[in-house]
Amino acid sequence: MTLGRLGPLGHEIPVLHHRDAVYDLRSLTVDIDGPFLAAGGAARARAAADAGELPVLENAADLRVGAPIAQPTKIVCVGLNYRDHAEETGAAIPAEPVVFMKDPSTIVGPFDEVLVPRGSTKTDWEVELGVVISETARYLDSPDEAARHIAGYVLSHDVSEREFQLERGGQWDKGKSCETFNPLGPVLVPASDVDDVQQLGLRLWVNGELRQDGSTATQIFPVAYVIWYLSQFMVLRPGDLINTGTPAGVALGLPDAPYLKAGDVVELEIDGLGRSRQEVGQA
Amino acid sequence: MTLGRLGPLGHEIPVLHHRDAVYDLRSLTVDIDGPFLAAGGAARARAAADAGELPVLENAADLRVGAPIAQPTKIVCVGLNYRDHAEETGAAIPAEPVVFMKDPSTIVGPFDEVLVPRGSTKTDWEVELGVVISETARYLDSPDEAARHIAGYVLSHDVSEREFQLERGGQWDKGKSCETFNPLGPVLVPASDVDDVQQLGLRLWVNGELRQDGSTATQIFPVAYVIWYLSQFMVLRPGDLINTGTPAGVALGLPDAPYLKAGDVVELEIDGLGRSRQEVGQA
Repeated sequence: MTLGRLGPLGHEIPVLHHRDAVYDLRSLTVDIDGPFLAAGGAARARAAADAGELPVLENAADLRVGAPIAQPTKIVCVGLNYRDHAEETGAAIPAEPVVFMKDPSTIVGPFDEVLVPRGSTKTDWEVELGVVISETARYLDSPDEAARHIAGYVLSHDVSEREFQLERGGQWDKGKSCETFNPLGPVLVPASDVDDVQQLGLRLWVNGELRQDGSTATQIFPVAYVIWYLSQFMVLRPGDLINTGTPAGVALGLPDAPYLKAGDVVELEIDGLGRSRQEVGQA
Repeated sequence: MTLGRLGPLGHEIPVLHHRDAVYDLRSLTVDIDGPFLAAGGAARARAAADAGELPVLENAADLRVGAPIAQPTKIVCVGLNYRDHAEETGAAIPAEPVVFMKDPSTIVGPFDEVLVPRGSTKTDWEVELGVVISETARYLDSPDEAARHIAGYVLSHDVSEREFQLERGGQWDKGKSCETFNPLGPVLVPASDVDDVQQLGLRLWVNGELRQDGSTATQIFPVAYVIWYLSQFMVLRPGDLINTGTPAGVALGLPDAPYLKAGDVVELEIDGLGRSRQEVGQA
């Protein structure tokens, strides 16, 4: 079973995908948000569906697929978290996680348009495993404690403008927060439904050509370590999104640096988390 | 007149301070938030008070002073925006604004406790002029357009952990987003009530000793330029907070580096924006 949100941007309906049906969750919650996830929303939704208490959403197939979570308090990102990606960018392997942030209002649906910013010549792709927080995480004692603070996992696209990020004055955030720069979804998969989060394949295609083909098995800092680590520096809140880094194969690391331009099509997938597709437009 | 929020953390009442009275704004809005500010809330509140339509909040003096705005979508910060501060940190004068982000959940009230993070030895102070956005700002044509996107100004404390920021792996956000690291207020002053935002004195004391004594006249990039500039890289949303940098005098730049420790008291003020005071505790 998975959670999702269907309908027009800003007016999405929270839903449960379960046993080939799409259930309307509006009798349980207003949104797939922090309070819902902190209250064990995924398990409650499944139990309600199994008990026959949830209506089926009849026109689900006709609705836009929105991002599967409401806009979070923050998006925290880990940079250079795959050895092959660190190498392709010419960066040293980090001794501890590199942390940056992304404007939460960059989140769009998994099939929405991604806009090349005005003045951009280096808009790049990054397929990432996204982690969604359930319970507040503050100074966790060890990575072993991380699991109970994780609601689930989501396919995330950490779109990045490399000139803004690296050549325009020092901090990466400037190239990470452009409008539409975080397509998310299609679904939130509860952590309990993922066998081993460190054994997921991630793939990304541009115009049909496979550009990224990695595995979370090669993360330098695995998910549990990342959540523990971040909790030493900030309070992770229910509903927050953590983008855990991208494997090799981004435009920045390719010989011909084939950055995105209007008309391109990007497709992404992660094992068990579904598939997304964005057409590229011009802001 | 000014806007503010009074009451327990998470349950603040929106208020208008006007002609020596404190008016309860709950008949006009649920909070001092993006939708309220985008709808010209400050002017509407003043008009309602002058028309005798708002009740006075009788027990105002007994209530905790909260941050004067609801938690924003994002906090965007400009680094090294005062020539003297860039020099004291040993950094070059930036050719364009240095931009980073801060977890919006770091916002606390102007008289709330600031916590030294666990493992921290370099917790530092920064008095800053905060700008609150009224209307969505996206690719503004020039700095001249910035004014109509600004709701008002607020005294902001951009607390910073220098080891986390500068010595722990590359991006500043890690030292900027610790719990309680953004005391804000006491009030939001509408932009129309500030004669010249580039002529405001900023001061900060630690344990009664004056440590920062600057003026927005020495900002490298003035407020209007900053808003225009940021709008080229991200969409500024109603209610967003922009911290515009700090003048010289932080612990990092002092010969004896007198970083904050539990028991210290920090006081801040900006001309016309009021005064705040935080006791320092240990996380």
